Amino acid sequence: MSSPRIVTAALLVIGDEILSGRTKDKNIGHIAEYTTNIGIDLREVRVVPDEEDEIVAALNALRHRYTYVFTTGGIGPTHDDITADAVAKAFGLPIDVDPRAVAVMRERFKPEELNEARLRMARMPEGSELVHNSYNKVPGFRIGNVIVMAGVPVIMHAMLDAVAPTLETGVKLISTTQRADMKEGDLGDALRAVAKAHPDAMIGSYPFWDESGQPNTNLVVRARDQAALDAATAAVAAMLAALKAR
Amino acid sequence: MSSPRIVTAALLVIGDEILSGRTKDKNIGHIAEYTTNIGIDLREVRVVPDEEDEIVAALNALRHRYTYVFTTGGIGPTHDDITADAVAKAFGLPIDVDPRAVAVMRERFKPEELNEARLRMARMPEGSELVHNSYNKVPGFRIGNVIVMAGVPVIMHAMLDAVAPTLETGVKLISTTQRADMKEGDLGDALRAVAKAHPDAMIGSYPFWDESGQPNTNLVVRARDQAALDAATAAVAAMLAALKAR
Repeated sequence: MSSPRIVTAALLVIGDEILSGRTKDKNIGHIAEYTTNIGIDLREVRVVPDEEDEIVAALNALRHRYTYVFTTGGIGPTHDDITADAVAKAFGLPIDVDPRAVAVMRERFKPEELNEARLRMARMPEGSELVHNSYNKVPGFRIGNVIVMAGVPVIMHAMLDAVAPTLETGVKLISTTQRADMKEGDLGDALRAVAKAHPDAMIGSYPFWDESGQPNTNLVVRARDQAALDAATAAVAAMLAALKAR
Repeated sequence: MSSPRIVTAALLVIGDEILSGRTKDKNIGHIAEYTTNIGIDLREVRVVPDEEDEIVAALNALRHRYTYVFTTGGIGPTHDDITADAVAKAFGLPIDVDPRAVAVMRERFKPEELNEARLRMARMPEGSELVHNSYNKVPGFRIGNVIVMAGVPVIMHAMLDAVAPTLETGVKLISTTQRADMKEGDLGDALRAVAKAHPDAMIGSYPFWDESGQPNTNLVVRARDQAALDAATAAVAAMLAALKAR
């Protein structure tokens, strides 16, 4: 039996404003959920400042390690938008204004609006493919396994929707969630034994406060095949029943 | 004149649930804002899964590079909480239940509640200092320049409040924000010239949609000394006035 195909990704969030706390990132959670749902495992996220050396180093560390690297941020029209140049440098490729990108931008901007600043948004490394942006036209791009998207969430969403159907996907992680109605510390010892007995499932324990303000726990089982998921889920349910019958 | 003292930090977020999108991280934004406000520059964030090798590798990459590394997540009572062991491994230190941590936990838990699972929360690498947790007692810890905190936001907040006064801090970044009432693409060329003329300030441009739904731009100037901040802020204001007078 061949092992299930696993497709991985990393996300590189680019922007001083995230690291200063001025802007609260909303892209990590969206991309994490999106990739999980289509069968791509998000394995790592990094947030780096708007500094070329930092972006290049992170990109080169990530792109050799994962099937895909998504980036968000730094592709606008101002001087602090340096992602495209950093990506070109990471790949050792020349970069210039892409006529296809300019053609798309003409659908939105009047000729007099296509100033030097806006034309910077059409710069991409040689050999890039455009990533369509249904929200406001200005495209992202893909070069090799790196997909470069805007940081503004509504635009990033449009770009992710456009690029997702072109990506290779693997076997989806499937999951179940059981509400324990117990404190995490009261089930930890029993759960450890269940996890050890079910190495082909991943079992996560997540404390929360329930609607009556009591400490409670969600037990999440994840697996790549239904039989493993079912077996571990049943074992967790049996464990909870046994603990409550004490 | 000596250059201003700069204190840096990285944040390592540990948890499969963030990478799967099941839990939306709220700690990055809080820690970013908090460290900025006390004069510590958050320079990098990484999110890694609950896997020892990944945690160790990220920790060793970050702790040699920044003044401090904060971690969040993975210090609860269940089998998937492996942060303390990974930190010990990264430092090459033995790890065991710390009697000081147990003593603190006795203030909250009855003897029969201090089972194996809960006692795992008292494990820390040899030589650690406890990080007080005013919310529910169970402490975090600090070893070397690494500060290990809970992932649950309300508990992380308590730990950060406790550890912050013990940290070295540097010269704060101070900032101004000017609302441009212009599209980013219409001011990008002029702003590039202002940024070039003020290399001792960092000028960021952040598009947003304003209350009437129009594309607008916030221009943020950041600097470490007041004179540089004032000069760049005035230059941005003059630039905006000139563009609007056209």
